[in-house]
Amino acid sequence: MARIEQHIDTWGWPAAAVYGQPGQGGFVLVCEHASSFIPPNADGLGLSAAAKLSHAAWDIGALDMAKRLSVRLKSPLIAGEISRLVYDCNRPLEAPDCIPARSEIYDVPGNKDLSAASRQSRFDHIHTPFHDTVTRVLDAAVGEVILVTIHSFTPVYNDLPRVTELGYLSHSDDRLARACLTQEQERGRMKAALDEPYSATDGVTYSLQKHGEARGLLNVMIEVRNDLIDTPHKAQAMGDHLAATLIAAQKEVTS
Amino acid sequence: MARIEQHIDTWGWPAAAVYGQPGQGGFVLVCEHASSFIPPNADGLGLSAAAKLSHAAWDIGALDMAKRLSVRLKSPLIAGEISRLVYDCNRPLEAPDCIPARSEIYDVPGNKDLSAASRQSRFDHIHTPFHDTVTRVLDAAVGEVILVTIHSFTPVYNDLPRVTELGYLSHSDDRLARACLTQEQERGRMKAALDEPYSATDGVTYSLQKHGEARGLLNVMIEVRNDLIDTPHKAQAMGDHLAATLIAAQKEVTS
Repeated sequence: MARIEQHIDTWGWPAAAVYGQPGQGGFVLVCEHASSFIPPNADGLGLSAAAKLSHAAWDIGALDMAKRLSVRLKSPLIAGEISRLVYDCNRPLEAPDCIPARSEIYDVPGNKDLSAASRQSRFDHIHTPFHDTVTRVLDAAVGEVILVTIHSFTPVYNDLPRVTELGYLSHSDDRLARACLTQEQERGRMKAALDEPYSATDGVTYSLQKHGEARGLLNVMIEVRNDLIDTPHKAQAMGDHLAATLIAAQKEVTS
Repeated sequence: MARIEQHIDTWGWPAAAVYGQPGQGGFVLVCEHASSFIPPNADGLGLSAAAKLSHAAWDIGALDMAKRLSVRLKSPLIAGEISRLVYDCNRPLEAPDCIPARSEIYDVPGNKDLSAASRQSRFDHIHTPFHDTVTRVLDAAVGEVILVTIHSFTPVYNDLPRVTELGYLSHSDDRLARACLTQEQERGRMKAALDEPYSATDGVTYSLQKHGEARGLLNVMIEVRNDLIDTPHKAQAMGDHLAATLIAAQKEVTS
């Protein structure tokens, strides 16, 4: 019992925040990796200051962009409030990387050799309330809504520069992703691609499947190269761009 | 029309975030000054980098403490997402300091000589959606809830150190504030006082009156000296302390 109490104390911070009004708008936005916050009792997971602020800890720029999208689309946004290095809310407990002991370039000492009870505790205190919040917002939706998950990726990965600027990803229903790509190609401003820099086989479409496909909702995961959104100004501009893309793509698919 | 469009563009960021589940818990928590965020199109209101991060822009530590309280009390929290220097959500549009042209030590160039239309625009895009969110969360409450607004204050003001650590403030119904003070005195850990360092006559109880007294809810405004909550660790400890105080005070008043 003492052990369980200690876990509760360690993770006693909210897992999610909601922006905008549930029940309004044609979209529900989800940003799993919005925050780099590590609860203080976790002792920073043994990470360096640089690692704690790096893309390993969160999707740089994604929250500001998602907040702007929420305003533009007049639709609610659910944002994660805990670093993915503590628990990655876009992964089930079975995924080997839901509590990563190593990211691309950083070891995560506080995640090594965790007991099953510790892993379960993080799941219970982070994954469960986060996804319960997504469920609650989707339950409040009026009529058919579109689920959009919002992520960012690094310009360089394993020493290779990435040329793609925007990726539209899907789990198995790729209608909306394809319509978004068509819009991008017509507008011609961004280097966009389907299923880049990741795809469903990398295990990144957990939230899409869990909340979108399970309800039969149109859905898409958006990945933006983070050098394009790493200030509020840039995130605002990209949010405006994506809002226009999503509205046009929605029309194309549903008309 | 072009002018109005420009205002909408300037303030096109969400005004509030909700933590926890509306409809659960015996409290509703409000943190008006949670964020130092200034929308990028406002050009930082002409402020220095120091001013933008100072207590003038937000209540340092208040959000982390309020988030912890939300978890401890299993009750929802509404937090402001825009700096009070853009619009102070704890003030009506009639208040001279709702868009301050000068704080304690900083001039705010971007707030000088604003037109009535600009003031109205900030009110419409920040105050209105923030308070609509508070209303929506209160409407979702089941049974009687207690309204608690959460603030912090500087250890030094106009060159004078402040000895008080915690202030419990009220508008006209001081039952809960008095019960909180009684609890603090019994526990003896904190230097607590009623109506310190401000009181209703300073115009700081706008939200209490608008949402608490107007609905006949028990309510209190909590002010914490910000040196006691300026890290997540300290904010966590103070959140735990205040949760115990509020639960005991609630019992005292309602039994």
